[in-house]
Amino acid sequence: MKGTVLYGPRDVRFEERPDPTITEPTDAVLRIAATCVCGSDLWPYRGVQPIDGPTPMGHEYCGFVEEVGSAVQSVKQGQFVVGSFATSDNTCANCRYGYQSSCVHREWMLRAQAPYLRVPLAEGTLVAAPGGSPSEDFVPSLLAASDVLGTGWFAADAANVKPGGTVVVVGDGAVGLLGVLSARQMGAERIIAMSRHAARQKLAREFGATDVVTERGDEGVARIKELTKGIGADSVLECVGTQESMMQAIRSTRRGGFVSYVGVPHDVALNAQELFYTHVHLHGGPAPVRRYLPELIDLILNGTINPGKVFDLTLPLDQVAEGYRAMDERRAIKALLWP
Amino acid sequence: MKGTVLYGPRDVRFEERPDPTITEPTDAVLRIAATCVCGSDLWPYRGVQPIDGPTPMGHEYCGFVEEVGSAVQSVKQGQFVVGSFATSDNTCANCRYGYQSSCVHREWMLRAQAPYLRVPLAEGTLVAAPGGSPSEDFVPSLLAASDVLGTGWFAADAANVKPGGTVVVVGDGAVGLLGVLSARQMGAERIIAMSRHAARQKLAREFGATDVVTERGDEGVARIKELTKGIGADSVLECVGTQESMMQAIRSTRRGGFVSYVGVPHDVALNAQELFYTHVHLHGGPAPVRRYLPELIDLILNGTINPGKVFDLTLPLDQVAEGYRAMDERRAIKALLWP
Repeated sequence: MKGTVLYGPRDVRFEERPDPTITEPTDAVLRIAATCVCGSDLWPYRGVQPIDGPTPMGHEYCGFVEEVGSAVQSVKQGQFVVGSFATSDNTCANCRYGYQSSCVHREWMLRAQAPYLRVPLAEGTLVAAPGGSPSEDFVPSLLAASDVLGTGWFAADAANVKPGGTVVVVGDGAVGLLGVLSARQMGAERIIAMSRHAARQKLAREFGATDVVTERGDEGVARIKELTKGIGADSVLECVGTQESMMQAIRSTRRGGFVSYVGVPHDVALNAQELFYTHVHLHGGPAPVRRYLPELIDLILNGTINPGKVFDLTLPLDQVAEGYRAMDERRAIKALLWP
Repeated sequence: MKGTVLYGPRDVRFEERPDPTITEPTDAVLRIAATCVCGSDLWPYRGVQPIDGPTPMGHEYCGFVEEVGSAVQSVKQGQFVVGSFATSDNTCANCRYGYQSSCVHREWMLRAQAPYLRVPLAEGTLVAAPGGSPSEDFVPSLLAASDVLGTGWFAADAANVKPGGTVVVVGDGAVGLLGVLSARQMGAERIIAMSRHAARQKLAREFGATDVVTERGDEGVARIKELTKGIGADSVLECVGTQESMMQAIRSTRRGGFVSYVGVPHDVALNAQELFYTHVHLHGGPAPVRRYLPELIDLILNGTINPGKVFDLTLPLDQVAEGYRAMDERRAIKALLWP
C-alpha cells in the first residue's frame, strides 16, 4: 500500500509502505474509512518539533476491522470501529481512573494516513459503532471522535463546564471549535469563542458560541473581564499550546475557576506564584478519548451532534500533502482524507 | 501598646506601636487571646523575601471583640472570634464562590503579633465561637484555625482527599502536619508524611499518618511509587513552596490525581509540557480559610480535632524574637505567643 511519510519541514510524501499485519495477538488491522490531518501534525510539519528521520504520519482514524489477533474479543472482522490516538489496555490502574491516554501500555498511534492500519491493544482501544456499519454521512463525525471531538470534549470536561456556566474557548482550530460544541452539550449558558477568522467564527456560532472575541493576549483578557462583570469566566478551555494562549486562558478565569489545556504545550513555563494568586484549577493533558468514545459515538449516530462539520476540505488520500499545506496556510480548518 | 516589627533579616523588635482604633465603620478591634509566628513569616525574616522598611508582623489571631464599627452586625463586643489572615467582605462574587482569600476587597492581615488588633471587614472576616468564651484549653487550636489549620484543610480539600484515598503530604511544617490531620478527617485510608525530623514524624503519626518517608526529591518520588504499586498517590499536598517540593509533589501523583499547593511558591517555574503528560489536577493559592472557619471551630470545640498540638513552644508575647529564632533554627514547629 501507499502511506504518508514526513521527511522534513513541509516535505510530506505519499509513498510505498509495508502492508500492516498482525504482529501481536492483541493487534487489529483496520481498513481505513477516513483519516485526516491534525493540528498537532503541523508542529513537525513546520519544523517546530524536530523529527528523527522520515516519520509515518496520522493518528486519527475510523474504519472496518480487517483482521484481529487471537487475544482480541471485543471487536470482530467487518465491524466499523473508532479508536483513539493513544492506545490503551483499558484495564490498568490509569485506565480504570479514566486516563486511558496515560495507560501503562500506551503507544502513540502513527501511520493512520494510509488505507490500512495496525492498531495495538485493539481490545482496549477500539470501540465498535453499535447497529452495524453507519451510513457514510456519519463517517466524518465518527472520524472526529477519534481525536478532535474527544479532545474538545475532554477540554470542556476538564474545565468543569456545568449547566449555566460561562465558558471561554481560547483557540479556533478544530479542537477549540469542538470545545465550543462540547460546552454547549454540557449546558453552558454563555460560550465566548476567541477567534479573528470569519469562517471559524461562523462555525463557532453554529456549534453554540454566544459571543466572539477577536482580541488576544492582555486585550483579550480585558475583553473577557468586561463581558463577565470583572470576575472572569467559570471555565476556560486552552486549545492552542503557546505561552500567550496559556496565560490568556489563566488570566481570563475567575478566582477558583477552571482552566483546561489540551494542546501539547510548546515552550510554555508557568510562574507558580502568579498561578497561586489566580486561584484557578488547572487540568489537562493528552485527552483520554477512549473514556468518552461510547458516549460520543451515540451522540453522533442519534444525530445530536455533528462534529464532522469541522472538515471544510475533503481530499483523496493521495493528495495528503495538499491537506497539510491548506491547514498550514489556514485555508482549511481541517482536511479529511478518503482512501 | 507594644507590637512586633521586623526591621530586616533576623531583626525582630517588640516595640511601642500606636493603639489600634476603629478607622472604618466596617472595622473591629480585638484584644488578642493568642497569636503566633507563621512559617511564611520566615521568608522575610530570613531575607529571602525583601521588605520595604520596618514591617509590623503577624497575621494569625483569635481573641475578644473590644469594639466594632457602626456597620458591623455579625459580631459583638465581648465575643470570642477567629479570623483569617486575609480579610473578606464575604459577599462579592469571589467570596460567594468560596474564595474569600481572593475577595475583591481583600487586605492581607498584619500587626497581629500584638495585644490589640484592628480587623478590617470584620463582618465578613470574623467568626464567633458559639456558646460564649471557650475554655483556655481550646485557644491554641482556635488560633491554629486562623491560618495553619485552615490552610492544611484547604490543602486536603484542594487535593480532592476522599474516603479510602492515598494521600502524600510534602512538607512537615505546621501546615503539612495539619494537612495530615485534615486528610485523616476527610477519610483518607493511607497518609504518607514526608519528613526527616523525629518530633515532626511523631506528631504526623499522632495526627493520622500511616507511613513516613524520609527521602526527598527523585528518591522521595521513587519511594512513593514503590508504596503505591508504581502508580502514585491520589492526592498530594504540597506544603512548602520550593521548586523541589513542587516537582516532588507533581511526580508523586498518579495520572489524573490531584496536587494542591498552599505555600506561596518562591521562584518556582512549572514546565507546562511535563505537567501536561503527568495528567494531574493542580489547584492551590492562599487558603480561603473563611470558608472553613465555622466547621473547623465546631470540630475543635466538640473535641474531634486538636490542631493546637502543633504549638510546641509557648512564649510570652514580648519574647516574640525568640519564637522567630526557634522556628528559623527548626528547634520549634510553631511558637505560640501569649500577650
